[in-house]
Parts: sequence; structure tokens; C-alpha cells
Amino acid sequence: MSQPRILQVRTKILKANDETAREMRRRFEAAGVLVVNMVSSPGSGKTALLEETLTRLRTRGTSVAAIVGDLETDNDARRLARSGAPVRQIETHGLCHLEAAMIDEHLAGWDLAGLEMLFIENVGNLVCPTSWDLGESVRVALLSVTEGEDKPLKYPGLFNTSDLAVITKTDLADAVGFDRTTALANIERVRPGMPVLEVATRTGTGIDAWIDELLLRRSSLLRRG
Amino acid sequence: MSQPRILQVRTKILKANDETAREMRRRFEAAGVLVVNMVSSPGSGKTALLEETLTRLRTRGTSVAAIVGDLETDNDARRLARSGAPVRQIETHGLCHLEAAMIDEHLAGWDLAGLEMLFIENVGNLVCPTSWDLGESVRVALLSVTEGEDKPLKYPGLFNTSDLAVITKTDLADAVGFDRTTALANIERVRPGMPVLEVATRTGTGIDAWIDELLLRRSSLLRRG
Repeated sequence: MSQPRILQVRTKILKANDETAREMRRRFEAAGVLVVNMVSSPGSGKTALLEETLTRLRTRGTSVAAIVGDLETDNDARRLARSGAPVRQIETHGLCHLEAAMIDEHLAGWDLAGLEMLFIENVGNLVCPTSWDLGESVRVALLSVTEGEDKPLKYPGLFNTSDLAVITKTDLADAVGFDRTTALANIERVRPGMPVLEVATRTGTGIDAWIDELLLRRSSLLRRG
Repeated sequence: MSQPRILQVRTKILKANDETAREMRRRFEAAGVLVVNMVSSPGSGKTALLEETLTRLRTRGTSVAAIVGDLETDNDARRLARSGAPVRQIETHGLCHLEAAMIDEHLAGWDLAGLEMLFIENVGNLVCPTSWDLGESVRVALLSVTEGEDKPLKYPGLFNTSDLAVITKTDLADAVGFDRTTALANIERVRPGMPVLEVATRTGTGIDAWIDELLLRRSSLLRRG
């Protein structure tokens, strides 16, 4: 069955992106860089968690950097730079996702061999980033307790393609009447067996476990390499 | 300057959508139906506000209906149907916005002449729905206090094309440290003069003003017609 024109074009572009991403993944793995692609709704707390993550990892002597995508503004890059880590902003000017070639371009001048982890904060969107491989080692789907328990069922594409789920803002769980059991069951239903971490960046709850998970995944990457 | 192929195709599709939407807008206005297109992030409280809105308007004798869009599931239609209003669900299966033709199709069998207000709950997304006119009378951009004050600056496309902003979940403002002044200034910066309402569906704060605003806009529509 032949595809409509717009789908043909889209398929071709996605295929080119996949090839770029595959090549980048090989390069990241050869250099021993764990690349973490963080995807969520706008306002789910990606930037806050990432600022804390960069700060903590640097304190523990891990060499980290971040690339952050937004439609407009470099607010997030400025926030993240407070951690002391090198940070670059991609402004997509209307595009609702990052693409592999954008990451590749923004890596220019960075010495991958000196880097242990690279965090990519994707554009806040539960749909568009799903189809775009960025060469990441780990795709993380974040879900804040304020968004409701049904998001995994409504956006199965994201949860299906992720390696790890992080429930954020757990300090607000009681205030918003978050039903944890249902949320976990919904994630499990869409992506059986996916590990789920629960964090509250403001209070620090769960952050140690998140950092440990990242360090563990980096060690695994080195062993595989 | 010639556009790349994918942009040409996209421009053509958007133009066709605009024509359908214009024709629908004429039909809605002729029938005296105020059509409200509600756009926001996933989890900003659209469905909760809409359920309360349908219930209150029905109590006041206003004839209302709703069409709700999601990638997957008919959870929201089932929630909204508790109000007693006629509700239809559109499952987009991966598409991150609603299009005019989808609304048109889902109106089949509904007597527009007997309807005073039609609410469209768009797919939870701050980017994709922006370009798609649904023939609405009013586009409402919703922003919950938990999402952060910077969203209007990061997603100017939505706020620029909206007629009304609604800040939701104001009962959580203190718990999340919401900076109301900055949020209002950011909306004003992107869309000077746009009216902003503030509501907390759980406590009922601001709901009367929102209902009054809708009734006022319906009256204006009738006077224009």
C-alpha cells in the first residue's frame, strides 16, 4: 500500500535521522559517554532535576555536560549553567522535538573523550520527541504527580520507547491526590518491566537512587564497550 | 525562495485546514454556537475544568456539548460524560493535534441549532495544536501553576494565537512557590492585553468568573450574528 506524500517525506527524514543517531551512538559508546535523553511534558520538572543532577555528579567527580532544547529562550541553559557544567542551548523556533543532527552540531568543540555523561533535555512534549532517536544510551520518560496517573495510557509512544521512567514532584503527591498504585500500574501496562524511580527535587527524596542508577548505567556502558 | 518539500506539503495541508475551519466558523456563528478550543500541556487540568464547566452551565440551563481529543483512550470522554452533556472522543492514534475535518466529522448527527456552546478539548500539547484552526470562536491557553511561570515565553506560538489565558490549579500556588506576578508579566509580554482568568477547579475559586466570561462571549457572538 503506498503512503500519502507527507508520510513518504516524513519516513525519509526519520530514516536519515536514524542513520545519524546510529553513527552518533557508536561514537558516544566508543568514547564511554552515557547519553541520557530526558523527555516529558512542559513543566514536569526536567530542568530542576537536571540542575540538581549535574551539581551532584560534579561533586562526585563525574564529568558531565548538558544540551537543552526549547522552542524559544535560553532560560534553561542559564539555569543549568549554575551547576558549573558546560551547557548548550538549542532553540528550535517552533519545532516540537530535537533531532540527531542538531545534537551533533551542538557537540562541536566538546571533547567527548573527556566526558562521562551527556544529558539532553528535550523539548517539553509527550508526542513529537518519541520518533526521534538522538543516539542516546538511555531515554528517560518523566511524569510529574501533578499531571495525573493516566498519562502512560494516553501517551504510550513515549513510555514504550523509554528505558526508565521517573515520577517527579512526589512531595506534591498528597496535595494533588496522586494515586501512586494506579500510576505504576499504568506504566507497567504500557511498558512491562520498565524500572521506575520516584523523586522530589525540592526535598531531595529519591535523588540518591537516581544518581546511583545513572552511575550504574555508565559502568554497564563501559563494560559493554 | 522555494520551500523544502516537507514544508510545501505542510503548507498545503494547513491551507486546506484553514478553509475547512473558516467554513465551520461560519456555520457555528450562523447557529449561534460559541466554540471554545482549549489548549494546554498534558496534565494542566483541562478535563477537570471542563467537567465542572459542563456541569455548571447545564445547571444554568445552557445547552452544551464537548469533543475531546487524545492520542489514545476514551478516558476523558467518559469523565466528561458524567456531567450529563453529550460528549464525543477523538482518538488521534499518535497525531499531536486536532484538525478541523476531524471536528467536522464528529459533529455528524448533532443539531447545532439546539446547541449554545461546544467545547473542544485539544490534545495535550503546547506546540502542535497552535497551527490548526478548528473554527473556534475562542482559543483558550491553559497554564497550571505547577508548570512554571516561563511557559508563555517558551511557547509564544500558543499564547500569541489565543484569545484568553486561564491559569489553573491556583490552590497549589503556595505549595509550588508559583510566582504570579512573573507569570502574568510573561503572558502580557507575549500577548499584550490578553485577558487572564485564574481558577482552582478543586476548590471552586474563580469558576464563577470563568462561567460568566463564557456566557458573555456567547452573548457577544449572538449580537454580532
